[in-house]
Amino acid sequence: MHYKQELTAVGSAALDTIETPHGKVEDVLGGSVFYIGAAAGLFAPTNIVAVVGDDFPFDEIEFLRERNVNFDGLETAMGDTFRWSGRYHKNMNIRDTLSTELGVFAGFEPKLPFGAAEAKYLLLANIHPELQLDVLEQMEEPRLVAFDTMNLWIETAREQVLELIKKVDLVIINDEEITLLTGEISPFAGASKIIKMGPRYVVVKKGEHGSVLISRDDPPFLCPAFPLAEAKDPTGAGDTFAGAMMGYLAATDDLGDFNMRRSIIYGTITASFTVEDFSIERLKQITSDDIEERVRVFRTMVEF
Amino acid sequence: MHYKQELTAVGSAALDTIETPHGKVEDVLGGSVFYIGAAAGLFAPTNIVAVVGDDFPFDEIEFLRERNVNFDGLETAMGDTFRWSGRYHKNMNIRDTLSTELGVFAGFEPKLPFGAAEAKYLLLANIHPELQLDVLEQMEEPRLVAFDTMNLWIETAREQVLELIKKVDLVIINDEEITLLTGEISPFAGASKIIKMGPRYVVVKKGEHGSVLISRDDPPFLCPAFPLAEAKDPTGAGDTFAGAMMGYLAATDDLGDFNMRRSIIYGTITASFTVEDFSIERLKQITSDDIEERVRVFRTMVEF
Repeated sequence: MHYKQELTAVGSAALDTIETPHGKVEDVLGGSVFYIGAAAGLFAPTNIVAVVGDDFPFDEIEFLRERNVNFDGLETAMGDTFRWSGRYHKNMNIRDTLSTELGVFAGFEPKLPFGAAEAKYLLLANIHPELQLDVLEQMEEPRLVAFDTMNLWIETAREQVLELIKKVDLVIINDEEITLLTGEISPFAGASKIIKMGPRYVVVKKGEHGSVLISRDDPPFLCPAFPLAEAKDPTGAGDTFAGAMMGYLAATDDLGDFNMRRSIIYGTITASFTVEDFSIERLKQITSDDIEERVRVFRTMVEF
Repeated sequence: MHYKQELTAVGSAALDTIETPHGKVEDVLGGSVFYIGAAAGLFAPTNIVAVVGDDFPFDEIEFLRERNVNFDGLETAMGDTFRWSGRYHKNMNIRDTLSTELGVFAGFEPKLPFGAAEAKYLLLANIHPELQLDVLEQMEEPRLVAFDTMNLWIETAREQVLELIKKVDLVIINDEEITLLTGEISPFAGASKIIKMGPRYVVVKKGEHGSVLISRDDPPFLCPAFPLAEAKDPTGAGDTFAGAMMGYLAATDDLGDFNMRRSIIYGTITASFTVEDFSIERLKQITSDDIEERVRVFRTMVEF
């Protein structure tokens, strides 16, 4: 691995029980940080910050060490790990949450270990915006801060979400969230509003329809999704996307338009592996070479 | 205009009353053939075949003559022109049909004038599949036949739709229709099923999410939509796409993978103009230069 900078990512750690039309798994690795770690670690050293309970199966994340993922910020608290359970419909764009048991996640107070606070790239994955603001203050001098959130916080903690948007460089948001946040149905109109609040970049994730990078100073970049014959489990695709994108940016430490576009491509391609199996199973198996090969194939599908 | 072949297109001719969040228009040009003619005519001579009533405002389509659109196949029948009325929601992906008065369209029996039957490129726009089959038989020796349809015919005339699919080269279909036709949610899985029935190409239109070209012999081509600050009226975007695509193919008479991809780009870009105003208003104003300029801008949004 050749890299220039490190990435720090703060988010959730969970054990998921997931049912899709292709099967069911129980208490598998979930939450954002393991997807982010497994993805970003393919590109640059990554510090993950989250909380797990004393029931957490640490042996299942041993493989992340070889991927240069640092767990010093993965706090173990007395109690149960956050558990989420969901069922996807035949059309896997639709899912029902069956249960959410916060466990130790309810009392999460992220503390960045020294190395993590020094990283130049920071990914604030989806947790309560109050905690995200707190993490941002703990950072030494980050070069690029990316921010992800969810409908729940846009609805219940709107002021803090807006405060974060003013302070970060890159907002990663999906099509539903951007409408909820800005009132705009078009992701382009919504992203323009967000850019006016401060961030230099907005990435709108559209799931199977790909993503769009909107920049303050450059033309938008329209990126289709990589087509898959069969997706087994969409869980974690968005976190994988964000993790790979930020890992790639940390590794290259180049915020030029061309390199920003490439980060979207690497996010897209890495996420395409995640959905091929449950949890992080597929992501665990792949190498940088697998990603490069699929990037090459992707190129044959978009050139004209 | 430099062109190699001509295009013949059969479809509907209507007068539309449309309400969108951006305004309302009454009895404006609608139906597929005027969008197709105005779009395809920018690339190659185009013969349009449809029926209008004796109330039809012929002066409104005079401009098509300068665009090398031949009306010999536009039959005038005693009675009223087909009228459609619809209202789009704030999210313009959703629309309600308020009324449909078939008028003379109910008795439409397409007859191809001699020149039209000789064309090498044929676009069977959405009309009853029985009529499409009839038109196909009237053709001399077409090189590429494209077929469009709608949910109604897939549900009520499925056998004829399947018969057509076996006989045509290119199926143009949207994401909802392909699921209805094949049972597949993924457009890629659905397109594979269609390819197995006979056609060499399937183009899946996904509206604001762009389109996909799936070929029997080449990698898929993923084409995003051109982003617009504001769409006023989505009516006719799909017909414009198909018309420009087929006009471009007729003009170039080249079915190589690279040129097929370019036809999708020209379809995409031409359709992006259509939605900028009601009916064919914007399409009427533009020139080939406007299209080339927007293709150039589009390229800056997809390169990486």
